Amino acid sequence: MRKSNIFVLLALIAACFCVLSGAVEAAANLTGDPSGEATSTNPQGHLKEPIDFVWLLYCASIVFLMKAGVAFFGGFLRPKNMLNFSTHVFMDSVTGSMAFWFLGGAFLLGGSGLAAGYEHGNWFMGLSGFMNVGRSYDVTNVTFWVFNCVFCTISVSFIACAVAERMKLVPYVILSAVFCAWIYPVFGHWVWGGGWLANLPFGHGVWDFSGSSIVHMQGGVVALVGTIVVGPRIGRFNADGTPNSFKMHNVFFGIIGIIVLWTGWFGFNPGATLLGTDLRYSIVCVNTFLSAAAAGATAFFLSIAMTGKVNVPILCNSTLAGLAAITCSCAFIPVWASVIVGIIAALAYRGGKYLMDWKFKLDDALDSVAVHVFGGAWGVISLGLFSDGTYAEVTGLFFGDAGQLLAQVICVIASLAWALANGFIIFLILKHTCGVRVTKEQEEVGLDITYHGTECYPGTVFEKE
Amino acid sequence: MRKSNIFVLLALIAACFCVLSGAVEAAANLTGDPSGEATSTNPQGHLKEPIDFVWLLYCASIVFLMKAGVAFFGGFLRPKNMLNFSTHVFMDSVTGSMAFWFLGGAFLLGGSGLAAGYEHGNWFMGLSGFMNVGRSYDVTNVTFWVFNCVFCTISVSFIACAVAERMKLVPYVILSAVFCAWIYPVFGHWVWGGGWLANLPFGHGVWDFSGSSIVHMQGGVVALVGTIVVGPRIGRFNADGTPNSFKMHNVFFGIIGIIVLWTGWFGFNPGATLLGTDLRYSIVCVNTFLSAAAAGATAFFLSIAMTGKVNVPILCNSTLAGLAAITCSCAFIPVWASVIVGIIAALAYRGGKYLMDWKFKLDDALDSVAVHVFGGAWGVISLGLFSDGTYAEVTGLFFGDAGQLLAQVICVIASLAWALANGFIIFLILKHTCGVRVTKEQEEVGLDITYHGTECYPGTVFEKE
Amino acid sequence: MRKSNIFVLLALIAACFCVLSGAVEAAANLTGDPSGEATSTNPQGHLKEPIDFVWLLYCASIVFLMKAGVAFFGGFLRPKNMLNFSTHVFMDSVTGSMAFWFLGGAFLLGGSGLAAGYEHGNWFMGLSGFMNVGRSYDVTNVTFWVFNCVFCTISVSFIACAVAERMKLVPYVILSAVFCAWIYPVFGHWVWGGGWLANLPFGHGVWDFSGSSIVHMQGGVVALVGTIVVGPRIGRFNADGTPNSFKMHNVFFGIIGIIVLWTGWFGFNPGATLLGTDLRYSIVCVNTFLSAAAAGATAFFLSIAMTGKVNVPILCNSTLAGLAAITCSCAFIPVWASVIVGIIAALAYRGGKYLMDWKFKLDDALDSVAVHVFGGAWGVISLGLFSDGTYAEVTGLFFGDAGQLLAQVICVIASLAWALANGFIIFLILKHTCGVRVTKEQEEVGLDITYHGTECYPGTVFEKE
Repeated sequence: MRKSNIFVLLALIAACFCVLSGAVEAAANLTGDPSGEATSTNPQGHLKEPIDFVWLLYCASIVFLMKAGVAFFGGFLRPKNMLNFSTHVFMDSVTGSMAFWFLGGAFLLGGSGLAAGYEHGNWFMGLSGFMNVGRSYDVTNVTFWVFNCVFCTISVSFIACAVAERMKLVPYVILSAVFCAWIYPVFGHWVWGGGWLANLPFGHGVWDFSGSSIVHMQGGVVALVGTIVVGPRIGRFNADGTPNSFKMHNVFFGIIGIIVLWTGWFGFNPGATLLGTDLRYSIVCVNTFLSAAAAGATAFFLSIAMTGKVNVPILCNSTLAGLAAITCSCAFIPVWASVIVGIIAALAYRGGKYLMDWKFKLDDALDSVAVHVFGGAWGVISLGLFSDGTYAEVTGLFFGDAGQLLAQVICVIASLAWALANGFIIFLILKHTCGVRVTKEQEEVGLDITYHGTECYPGTVFEKE
Repeated sequence: MRKSNIFVLLALIAACFCVLSGAVEAAANLTGDPSGEATSTNPQGHLKEPIDFVWLLYCASIVFLMKAGVAFFGGFLRPKNMLNFSTHVFMDSVTGSMAFWFLGGAFLLGGSGLAAGYEHGNWFMGLSGFMNVGRSYDVTNVTFWVFNCVFCTISVSFIACAVAERMKLVPYVILSAVFCAWIYPVFGHWVWGGGWLANLPFGHGVWDFSGSSIVHMQGGVVALVGTIVVGPRIGRFNADGTPNSFKMHNVFFGIIGIIVLWTGWFGFNPGATLLGTDLRYSIVCVNTFLSAAAAGATAFFLSIAMTGKVNVPILCNSTLAGLAAITCSCAFIPVWASVIVGIIAALAYRGGKYLMDWKFKLDDALDSVAVHVFGGAWGVISLGLFSDGTYAEVTGLFFGDAGQLLAQVICVIASLAWALANGFIIFLILKHTCGVRVTKEQEEVGLDITYHGTECYPGTVFEKE
Repeated sequence: MRKSNIFVLLALIAACFCVLSGAVEAAANLTGDPSGEATSTNPQGHLKEPIDFVWLLYCASIVFLMKAGVAFFGGFLRPKNMLNFSTHVFMDSVTGSMAFWFLGGAFLLGGSGLAAGYEHGNWFMGLSGFMNVGRSYDVTNVTFWVFNCVFCTISVSFIACAVAERMKLVPYVILSAVFCAWIYPVFGHWVWGGGWLANLPFGHGVWDFSGSSIVHMQGGVVALVGTIVVGPRIGRFNADGTPNSFKMHNVFFGIIGIIVLWTGWFGFNPGATLLGTDLRYSIVCVNTFLSAAAAGATAFFLSIAMTGKVNVPILCNSTLAGLAAITCSCAFIPVWASVIVGIIAALAYRGGKYLMDWKFKLDDALDSVAVHVFGGAWGVISLGLFSDGTYAEVTGLFFGDAGQLLAQVICVIASLAWALANGFIIFLILKHTCGVRVTKEQEEVGLDITYHGTECYPGTVFEKE
């Protein structure tokens, strides 16, 4: 408790500092376009910007809804931790977005030149656009900010999925804020903000349309670090190292979760055109749809053939892996290739899950690593294979450009390296200051009682475990 | 289990064949517009296409969300089958969309001339646009594909609603694929793809704006066939033929379901303009809204007047019937008429439910037939009555054109005939090959254990039945 | 029961009358633009209107989804009343929208001149645009109608939140209809329809962008009246006046609820530009996002600092208060100010909750008053403080115009006065005719059994209270 208070104090100090510095910057000359009147000269003139803005804000809104989808995946957990898990997911949007507002947005897009306020940055990170003040108080600037903020606050929730049921609450929230302020934005800058990966001299440089290497791999790899540092839940592995499964409490919620997530991907991938006037988003849309369907179908028939039954969590996660994979390549590959991307993504997830459970003996509560790291990495590679040159002239190996594949492989390695390094730094700092793991007693009674003073389903009778 | 493996094999063979043929077609000259650059010459020129595309993709995304609404209706079932039911609904999107990609989309829209790739077809069915390859690898083509795919994969779930709690899993998935590949697309082609119904010499030919006769009646009538062939659940009817009700497990989910479905209808009906620049969708929107409201209000007051209580499943299903009915006529009738359509839809649903339960003695687990066949048929007729000539010059009986009513009646008959014939063929083939009905023991233990190896709510204690 | 029948009769009479008068009006010359062809001369000409329409209908659709969010908040109630509560929320959309169609829309927007059909009105109320007939059968007219209808039917559900678990069903539905037909529209007309508040000679007259004083305060203040007239639930207050908390039944649903509501606010606030071509909605969007986040973060750290635990209902409701507050000022204030609005909204909610529970001793089942009245009133004031003059030249106290603050204060007082007066009138009429409170026995057995003849979760075993 006393430690918690220290963090509250630190947070308040940080808040004061930021608001203060914001006020200073705001006092400088305002040269953005906050009213939007200079951006679009309606009604007589250009209507392009309104179409772009409507498109991007609609996409952002259904991406935000994905939060509910992630929270519903908690049905695969034990009921005694459901409330804590969903609070993690929710706080990612709350404190995560504050962190992304303070720092993350500027680190990500500064120097990209996408809008007023995003002028300054270098090969490593962005350096302007903090807190939407000054020049960043501009309609175009904030539209990009909103869209990127919902992406970032989804990504961080993949960590919550992995470390569920045993990580401390306040350290998680701090981790979440650091992820949104630093880890995600800096790597994102390398690809989306004009950083070094985007300018690699292979192929057309790294391309990652909606962020398999950013949204999925950054979140997923830090989740992997979390499973290592936080350690497995009590009883997850037997003395001989074989894994146990815990009893889920609401498998139906997983089905709802994947439906909501799939819906959100209608905004996630197509929206990454950033322009409502770039009609390629329709190809993006169908590719996303079919990769998910192919991954789900693969899992279904594989499950039926192997066991005669359909394992629903694996069905849901395989579909999710199909979505995570196509996220990178959706805009560049022909439609038939998206089916192949989905099929292989389902297999990559199964392989990743096998490795995590049986070889690495790491406890990933909701298979976050298998879905987002294995699925995501395959997605980044797939762009280097199947891109057919019909969009931005990006061409993969099978259509003649081996260089693009090389660029994508470098992207995967860079994504792993950056997230591993930063993930370990922050997780180890947290471990050795406030600790990251609840006590044995707290874990056994459940994190809902521990951190929220109530069961998630008060009054509902559950069988003894 | 051995039979399942045969189907897996068949599915894999089919997949290989399709991918192969796709590759062949893709090798042919590519003359669609996959990049979208020729479709819209932004930023200097036309902005019409971007508006149309944004509109249609937004509508498709919230229609996809309706899947969650349908799954939530499972709350009206017994908990031991909830997971299986929601898996059915989810697989409709997974394998259903694959089938619609292989064949359905081409059978539906080929020959309509709506976009590159949809050139070939006849009065009976479409014959081009398979798998979005070749000319169909085109931004306009795939946009229509996505929009129609989400429609089709909703329609098939109405079958899942009717046969819930006792149909075998793999046969259901095969049925779902056949429905999406053949039954729905061919009938849809008759109305939307320039087929014979659209060209009837009565009135302005058959009009069905968003598909009461297609989405609702095709799904609903095949569902009716399912209730006949699969038979009633054990204990559903007494020896004297009177029906019993089973205990529901989560009535609240039904309320959430109808809210999500109603939300989805904001995309379902207005989106069927296909054009963001056809402002009539605003009339469509208000008509849809009021028909649902009028149907719900009718059910509410009727229920209060008859029993002093409000039966929530009937309230939800009546509202749904209002939505199913207005789906056909929403674009053609004045606003006040939509209220009448809704009121009568609620009564049609009640009548249909009475017939199913007490006269036909058919077991429709979620009243799918009463909602979608009775509600849908009334909707198709309503267009022939109330159309006021303000849209596409379509005029109904009350505004002077009896011919339109005749066309709509023919549409209802054709819809019934096609879905009955094809529904019986596929259901009887399935029955006599792999079987459609689980064993008595499986039904009693529940399909969740049988097919998924877990309860839907593991650990939750339910009262003995 | 007999009384119920009287109301059914009255409703039917009203319906007949309205339809009749509608038919008369419809017979008059039709001079609106129901086909949309005159509104926008596509494809050669203007595309502005289609952008505006697409924007507004998309926003309306995700606002409608907020209904599900409100219903999920029922997880904070006892399971024996969950079905009744969610039925209330659903009926607000059903009968509420019928009432808004009969009368409310015209009372609200008549005289605003926003579209054909909205020509007539005065300083007090609108007088044309009934039932979308005659001139109101117009694409622009009905688009505004739909958007405003979903707003109104959300607002009324805040009453359901406050009086949950003990109010009679049919009187609630009547109240809901009166609210949507009269209370909300007339006050709304004062601000949005060109009424007296909009024309106050202070500042730029009252501005309330998306309706903190309308949507939130009208609903919230009538909810306050409800808590007074209906009285507290049995056992809510001890003999010494100290409040008790009841056992919630599904705290997770609250998290889902707030995520869905937050998503809906992406349409709620930005949509109030009414124009897809007014790019200021992007600033609206980021302000809405950050106010919610700041309010949530404030609640989180406050809760941790005070108790070491995080109270989830308070976290959810604080975030909601942040959203309720920013609803008024979102378009007018700089981004940094939205963070301050959110922080103070969280505190205002806590203060309001303290007053309701400990000082006023009023039983507000879901803290509706604390969120929507206290949060909403702060929001109306905040516009008078932080508006920076970059939008519609509205400038607040801190940027030099004290008059605007005065106008906003008058708005708060007027909102309180109107809702209190009308709320008491309708609640007292209901109390002395059909009664508003269920019997002690009905309350103890639960409203689900009483009004719906079933438990919400039949078969689920709950602990004895």
